[in-house]
Amino acid sequence: MIYLDNAATTFPKPPQVLREVQKCLSSYCGNPGRGSHRLSNAAGEKIFEVREQVSDFFGCENSENVVFTLNDTYALNLAIKGFLHPGDHVIISNFEHNSVYRPIRAMADCGLIKFSIFDALAPDTVGQIEKLIRKNTRAVIVNHTSNVCSLTLPVEKIGELCRKHKMIFILDAAQSAGHEEIHMEKMGIDVLCAPAHKGLMGIQGCGLLVLREGLSLPETVIEGGSGVNSLEWQMPDQLPERLEAGTLPTPAIAALGEGIKFVRSVGTDEIKKHLANLFVLSLDRLSSINGVKIYAPKHQGSTLLFTVSGIPSDTVAAHLDSCGICTRSGFHCCPSGHNVLGTPEDGAVRVSFGIFNRESDTDALYRAVKELVF
Amino acid sequence: MIYLDNAATTFPKPPQVLREVQKCLSSYCGNPGRGSHRLSNAAGEKIFEVREQVSDFFGCENSENVVFTLNDTYALNLAIKGFLHPGDHVIISNFEHNSVYRPIRAMADCGLIKFSIFDALAPDTVGQIEKLIRKNTRAVIVNHTSNVCSLTLPVEKIGELCRKHKMIFILDAAQSAGHEEIHMEKMGIDVLCAPAHKGLMGIQGCGLLVLREGLSLPETVIEGGSGVNSLEWQMPDQLPERLEAGTLPTPAIAALGEGIKFVRSVGTDEIKKHLANLFVLSLDRLSSINGVKIYAPKHQGSTLLFTVSGIPSDTVAAHLDSCGICTRSGFHCCPSGHNVLGTPEDGAVRVSFGIFNRESDTDALYRAVKELVF
Repeated sequence: MIYLDNAATTFPKPPQVLREVQKCLSSYCGNPGRGSHRLSNAAGEKIFEVREQVSDFFGCENSENVVFTLNDTYALNLAIKGFLHPGDHVIISNFEHNSVYRPIRAMADCGLIKFSIFDALAPDTVGQIEKLIRKNTRAVIVNHTSNVCSLTLPVEKIGELCRKHKMIFILDAAQSAGHEEIHMEKMGIDVLCAPAHKGLMGIQGCGLLVLREGLSLPETVIEGGSGVNSLEWQMPDQLPERLEAGTLPTPAIAALGEGIKFVRSVGTDEIKKHLANLFVLSLDRLSSINGVKIYAPKHQGSTLLFTVSGIPSDTVAAHLDSCGICTRSGFHCCPSGHNVLGTPEDGAVRVSFGIFNRESDTDALYRAVKELVF
Repeated sequence: MIYLDNAATTFPKPPQVLREVQKCLSSYCGNPGRGSHRLSNAAGEKIFEVREQVSDFFGCENSENVVFTLNDTYALNLAIKGFLHPGDHVIISNFEHNSVYRPIRAMADCGLIKFSIFDALAPDTVGQIEKLIRKNTRAVIVNHTSNVCSLTLPVEKIGELCRKHKMIFILDAAQSAGHEEIHMEKMGIDVLCAPAHKGLMGIQGCGLLVLREGLSLPETVIEGGSGVNSLEWQMPDQLPERLEAGTLPTPAIAALGEGIKFVRSVGTDEIKKHLANLFVLSLDRLSSINGVKIYAPKHQGSTLLFTVSGIPSDTVAAHLDSCGICTRSGFHCCPSGHNVLGTPEDGAVRVSFGIFNRESDTDALYRAVKELVF
């Protein structure tokens, strides 16, 4: 099997990630509430350790600002609904995943907020955003790297713009975390959302919401037990407890810690280079096949989107699967991005590379696509 | 180590649960969106299989009505905020966990809903609830078995009352799932919320929201990618996708499947008997110690709450921990229940049994508590 669906979830995981999950489940998986006993404390200490790893990895000053969620979508919802107030205006790109677009749209449809959309493919990103700023613009929310192609936005410049205009900068790092150097303080990122199970090499069942130190506290979306201030009727005013209701996913958090160690041991720059190399090799080979169209070929990263003239994308992906190659067809939860790129009515095929892919995988992909055309 | 904090999370887990997590992570953990490839399909098939197990275990007619969440708290929040509308009135007990009380209170504090509280310790539960019903009472939400003592409510009778008055019956089965026979259809339960990692013997990182077939669709609290209808701006009108935004916790869901198999292999009735036996043994022994007070001793199940006269509960729990016995002190996220029971200002010590505890554990508990007094 050749796995080229790493934008959905990375596979396989480093062995140390799997080992840590087993160790956690068999030896320290108490409930990490402020504990009265060794097993609870052991789980709490591991979670504290991973918070420190996360804050260090993303250049966040305070590890208490690292919040664990179910997935990136939940992190984005807690951020969007926690920071946007009735009457606010927000700016997003035309490449947002449904995890951003749908909650924004739900709030807008209720009349709570208004939103504007800038063109992420246009060359002058900052100029595009700046034109849309209103008096009541509270936040800019963007996808760092798209999940349909390798389009990556100039985060540092957007951060600068947001500071200048006192807007909250919420970054969806679903595809960039682990693939791009991200430093919240240096890049002016106020809120970072990311999944644990993609580039960070953790497992499914954990997402991250990281808040810049000094940011005002968001409203809560979900309330429940928090391990502190049990006697209060409201969620505590302190992070991370305010945003972490109920039992945390200790095994998945422990896995994330090992995933981040693995990513650091290889180095984000090395990973980025490796993925871009696979992208360019695939681009060169696939482009040479009659009828293959590649979308946004100039944006070279880990994700390559293509169609084969006259063949539905589902059929292409099914054929690739029959050759043992895992890809994903359709709209990838980002209809707006597909629309901008001009993919056909049934979407396109996405190839997304991961750290464990090799150059020979791009050969196999080439051969399998070629079979379809000749 | 003697683990008596099973109400927080059960420990250890059956070996087959740990094995399934490893198998999942190493061989079938694709992203279970409606997939284009074998790894995604394999994850999807496992999740489908577990939905079937869950619906079958809880007497729910349709496995598509089984929704997976991060934990029980999230399940309860999605139910409470999804089914209650502005102007509604809701009835809860005075033994609700903060996972019910805090979201209800948050909605009430915004002026969205009103709520009334009945006394769960009073003998005539149904009469207590009936007195509080108003014209706009939309739901009754109760904890099946308390997490501070073994108080268990007559679910079937409450279900009957709810059907009669056309109120939605939301049951928090945090402590009862796996310990009590629960059949949604027979007992008139409209919405069942439960954690995977307690009596169901799964792992942390998964909760359950199960909706009775025929119930109206709830509003969404969290929106995002759902694997279906990518082109739509709203969450789909079908279950479970409407309530499952973003990537599911496949490993924790797979673990739940094995957990349920394990529970079924032992039998809920056997488990209940075993836990009640440990309760009675502990009650007898601890009661004989001077200064030990046991709360709600007539309610015999898996959870025993006690204090030692003149010794703060934290100190008692710390001493027990030093003897290798894991218990939990404080308020257990249920200040109202503690208040009704009349525990001291610093709460009490909770002993909660699990399937792997033995009678000798109650001896050890007795000896350790006795050490404190003499």
